[in-house]
Amino acid sequence: MKPINLGLIGCGTVGTGVVRILYSKNELLGNRIGIPLNLKYVADLDTTTDRGVTFPPGVMINDAWKIIQDPEIDIVIEMIGGEDLALKLIEAAIEKGKHVVTANKALLAKHGNRLLSAASKKGVDLAYEASVGGCMPIIKTLRESLVGNKVKSMIGILNGTCNYILSKITDEGINFQDALSRAQDSGYAEANPELDIEGLDAAHKLAIVTALAYGTHLDFDNVYIEGISRITPLDIQFAAQFGYRIKLLAISKDHGDTIEARVHPTMIPFDNILSNVNGTLNAVTVTGDAVGDILLYGHGAGMMPTASAVIGDIVDIARNLAFNAAGRLPLLACQPEKISSKSIMPINELVTHYYFRFEAKDQPGVLSKIAGILGKFGISLASVHQKGRKSGGSVPVVMVTHFAQESNVRTAMDEISRLDVVHGAPMVIRIENDNHLE
Amino acid sequence: MKPINLGLIGCGTVGTGVVRILYSKNELLGNRIGIPLNLKYVADLDTTTDRGVTFPPGVMINDAWKIIQDPEIDIVIEMIGGEDLALKLIEAAIEKGKHVVTANKALLAKHGNRLLSAASKKGVDLAYEASVGGCMPIIKTLRESLVGNKVKSMIGILNGTCNYILSKITDEGINFQDALSRAQDSGYAEANPELDIEGLDAAHKLAIVTALAYGTHLDFDNVYIEGISRITPLDIQFAAQFGYRIKLLAISKDHGDTIEARVHPTMIPFDNILSNVNGTLNAVTVTGDAVGDILLYGHGAGMMPTASAVIGDIVDIARNLAFNAAGRLPLLACQPEKISSKSIMPINELVTHYYFRFEAKDQPGVLSKIAGILGKFGISLASVHQKGRKSGGSVPVVMVTHFAQESNVRTAMDEISRLDVVHGAPMVIRIENDNHLE
Repeated sequence: MKPINLGLIGCGTVGTGVVRILYSKNELLGNRIGIPLNLKYVADLDTTTDRGVTFPPGVMINDAWKIIQDPEIDIVIEMIGGEDLALKLIEAAIEKGKHVVTANKALLAKHGNRLLSAASKKGVDLAYEASVGGCMPIIKTLRESLVGNKVKSMIGILNGTCNYILSKITDEGINFQDALSRAQDSGYAEANPELDIEGLDAAHKLAIVTALAYGTHLDFDNVYIEGISRITPLDIQFAAQFGYRIKLLAISKDHGDTIEARVHPTMIPFDNILSNVNGTLNAVTVTGDAVGDILLYGHGAGMMPTASAVIGDIVDIARNLAFNAAGRLPLLACQPEKISSKSIMPINELVTHYYFRFEAKDQPGVLSKIAGILGKFGISLASVHQKGRKSGGSVPVVMVTHFAQESNVRTAMDEISRLDVVHGAPMVIRIENDNHLE
Repeated sequence: MKPINLGLIGCGTVGTGVVRILYSKNELLGNRIGIPLNLKYVADLDTTTDRGVTFPPGVMINDAWKIIQDPEIDIVIEMIGGEDLALKLIEAAIEKGKHVVTANKALLAKHGNRLLSAASKKGVDLAYEASVGGCMPIIKTLRESLVGNKVKSMIGILNGTCNYILSKITDEGINFQDALSRAQDSGYAEANPELDIEGLDAAHKLAIVTALAYGTHLDFDNVYIEGISRITPLDIQFAAQFGYRIKLLAISKDHGDTIEARVHPTMIPFDNILSNVNGTLNAVTVTGDAVGDILLYGHGAGMMPTASAVIGDIVDIARNLAFNAAGRLPLLACQPEKISSKSIMPINELVTHYYFRFEAKDQPGVLSKIAGILGKFGISLASVHQKGRKSGGSVPVVMVTHFAQESNVRTAMDEISRLDVVHGAPMVIRIENDNHLE
């Protein structure tokens, strides 16, 4: 049987992992698929670095466009990341009728609708399991295994860097900057960590799985995003006193006409299984109307876990090609003409529980002023914690609310922060009490 | 587009769940697949019970063979369970060129090789995701998502009844019989609970996932099986003192030429995530050479979770049919001619840690006699716990070993049980210290 020709663009960490699996398991993969895979080209600007694999002559090239132009290439594997060149290459590959595998979540979140629509019109497959959750098969689970469900909600820890940093602050009581340095020293955070710590990476992923869960188009622009850089050891300690841990969660919920989609530091109860997902691990719970809750848990990043997901996609497409069945699976959750136009709810409409921390002057009447403003906006308190008086300086006043609406919380915080007895901006952390798998 | 015709045989709990999803989500499923599903017949001997669904005229029939004989039926959904009739029906359906979906783990474990071989020769699909772990997509994960991995090991809680009973004994200190009664009262155990509590159900499931993980044929006969009926609250308390919880685990590991496949009560450390999977929930960790560890966790049984998995299979096959791609996926892990002949290792060759409890006479020298026999067979102890002397009667002597071989353990236990200072058969529980997702 004629082999399926692959062209891989971008031989960095994950690309190298993909090459390793393709070379070391060529026979195994052939036995599983029934048709051999042939890695015809690997394109990278750097063709000389020793990647620990031996390329046969002519495989390693420095011109990605040679892969796009080669009529023999069936599947293009885009591993360069970034947006500009990757977008051009994928669009050109689709235009040439080639199938595409990518792990590029930023690209998909921002340009996915255009790419998927082009692929669908051309009848080619575009697979992206590795874009979310590394080796956790969340894309396949949503689009195939849970096809008989209406997804009600989804809560995930989707960024290993943030989870590592928050775990370090929690376990060692160090501050954010020190925890970030540790993450950088250990290779878990980039030199420029903004994409991770500001929540963007998790939001890219949430945009992708939200579209699959609720049958909508991708809508990254309306995902609410808040990073972890303001989280202090003090908040983590207070959280523990209330029975919570702080995690950067990606949350989406179906509200019928609209959906929630938000990424922010969140307090979750100790007995929520996600509160025990530590270090760089990722996990996601999906609640479906038939399955109840299910959890996937594993390594969300790293060379080989991500490469494993890429290989899964390559094999899915190869199996389609062996049966002339490209397009067998819609590229999002539904057939293109059936995609829902449900929109993402503005964050101001969110109703949830909140944790507040105010740095208040150590004098009588402060609590009453704060509580008065909260009351005015209909925000009622489930518990209040005021640290013992300190001579001079400020004391933290900590509160947990019953259900309150975000718009009211924002207006109240604004007013409270203007009180002369309160220093600086209040700390606000949303709480997620929905529990799963208990 | 011509709809795909389904015939469902056996409208019990899960069958009714499948009908509910097919009726309530007919449009949604059509939007997702791109081709409508038509439930042409539902066959059950009982055509009169109110199942909470309204069948259009002519759908409910009492003759399963009418489904097999009807040339319009594309997919047969076998939901009657049991072995004899189900086997005949599935064989006849395959012979007629129909695709089959089943959740019948006992049938697959025992007759799967024959059925899958017949299906493969005939070029029809036989899907069985619902046979293992209810809604957890373990079959799809092993066969598709992890296709680029060599699976190294797999450890699962695959029987909700046993997990419920052990959780009750652990949490409430009641004995096995009382916990079983509770499970029966709550509908979590059958009136005849043998299949569950003796470990057979978990072993059926382990046989299936073992074949998929290691690319072998099904080999239920060689899975080692031990149930939970001898577990006492006392053993659970001792386990806790050593930092362990007791679970009925299904364990398989790759040893190169052979594989381990065993189901038995097992002690696992508190910090192994599986030790916190309680009640009727199921979970499985898979360790692959590329992904590291991943965990799937969810409802392993019940009407709707199982029906959800059945729907996933129906849709997978429907998508194949829409593209004329039946047989796209091999029915086990590899193409039929490439299936490995690796065999399951006899339990006597197992090397692991063990917990022993002896009921010993309360007199001097007993410990030395027991330890002497263990030493003779090369079994060395990691810790020993002897309860304070009781006046008269017996005292429990509890031990945890370093690595020891099962054959030696069995011979030693035999010899120790013949000592006149030891009452009754020793309690032996295997320990699994390999930890995952830490």
